[in-house]
Amino acid sequence: MRYELYYWPGIPGRGEFIRLALEEAGADYLDIGQSPGNGVSAISAYLDDPQASRPPFAPPFLKAGDIVVSHVANILQFLGPRLGLVPDDESTRFWVQGLQLTLCDWLLEVHDVHHPIGASLYYEQQRAEARRRASLLIGERLPKFLGYFEHVLSSNPQGDTWLVGDSLTYADLSLFQMVAGLRYAFPQAMQRLEPEIPEVSALAVRVAERPNIAAYLASGRRQSFNEQGIFRHYPELDG
Amino acid sequence: MRYELYYWPGIPGRGEFIRLALEEAGADYLDIGQSPGNGVSAISAYLDDPQASRPPFAPPFLKAGDIVVSHVANILQFLGPRLGLVPDDESTRFWVQGLQLTLCDWLLEVHDVHHPIGASLYYEQQRAEARRRASLLIGERLPKFLGYFEHVLSSNPQGDTWLVGDSLTYADLSLFQMVAGLRYAFPQAMQRLEPEIPEVSALAVRVAERPNIAAYLASGRRQSFNEQGIFRHYPELDG
Repeated sequence: MRYELYYWPGIPGRGEFIRLALEEAGADYLDIGQSPGNGVSAISAYLDDPQASRPPFAPPFLKAGDIVVSHVANILQFLGPRLGLVPDDESTRFWVQGLQLTLCDWLLEVHDVHHPIGASLYYEQQRAEARRRASLLIGERLPKFLGYFEHVLSSNPQGDTWLVGDSLTYADLSLFQMVAGLRYAFPQAMQRLEPEIPEVSALAVRVAERPNIAAYLASGRRQSFNEQGIFRHYPELDG
Repeated sequence: MRYELYYWPGIPGRGEFIRLALEEAGADYLDIGQSPGNGVSAISAYLDDPQASRPPFAPPFLKAGDIVVSHVANILQFLGPRLGLVPDDESTRFWVQGLQLTLCDWLLEVHDVHHPIGASLYYEQQRAEARRRASLLIGERLPKFLGYFEHVLSSNPQGDTWLVGDSLTYADLSLFQMVAGLRYAFPQAMQRLEPEIPEVSALAVRVAERPNIAAYLASGRRQSFNEQGIFRHYPELDG
């Protein structure tokens, strides 16, 4: 099975949460947004196809043969059993997915810091509002989300190596990406906050050291964070 | 199976998306937040229990025997097959869930209109920002989301009665609730927009006329929208 990932090129963005799962599992996939002859036009053509009976609202979406799945959490839930990134039992799968949806909520809050009024305006058109929102993100929301995942790790009955059970799930990969993105966007804030969340920081190291992830991070496929993406470094927002 | 729904009392909020599924199916459930002897303290006690090994981040969450599931979309995915609110085949289930996640994204945008800076501040502390955001919501985002669901309905190969296939799914119930909430919060805007989305408006009528839903809407269990909830009517935001 060759998976096809549809996501905008030029930023890690939401697509990166899917790429990390595919890379960890060594899956065969084509990154349509970045592949020659495809790119933005192939994504737009799919979204705007008037014949499509099941059109996704927005990227990312994944094609797996005839199946098309949209949304980060939904795609990961689809891939989880296929790539061995989630345990077998149903109760645990819903728990992993609850963690993933918490991560997705958190990601949106981080995005909206630089776009509190609307995604259709430039950052420069909502800079004052962004500053107000950033101080709440850093003062209240980052400690709350980071503290929650620290608590989940430290109260896992099977040990504090991974969020769930005793092996890596897609939620661990996503938490790694959140930490990486936050370190890029808010280096000062994270330097203050990380001593309070040693288990989360240690998990991020463990993920980065997985052989397939380490190889991916060192490759040209891993895109840099930048100021067109979700995690943006604007020094005036990093209080 | 008696389900237990954990959600804050006093507002329909996110809990309503779960209640509609339970009511449509005639399921046995206890609404913990509104039941005597439980209420907010029972929810807080569960969230803050230091012994809990799988603590949800926030309500709503649902207990079904030993299984605890958090997040609207995840709860509906759990309930869907059990309550007969989703077809059997896997591909279609992922499609329904993609629609539900789009609805959840949309719901959050509607919430953030009155809280663009942060949920920990009062509306009155972010009124100017809310006005700016509302004009984009009404001018750009509502037409986009409503138009998307109109397109999904009208391109369903099995007819335009329901979003997916030829029978009701949990996504239809959620779309009904979105329309109901938007009519409450933005009556002027919706009066202008609804002529463009006849299929969506007709679906909302069909849902309201389902026998179990009609009985629920007429009962004391259906809570009114109000200005503590997600859908709030502030006339100055309804352009």
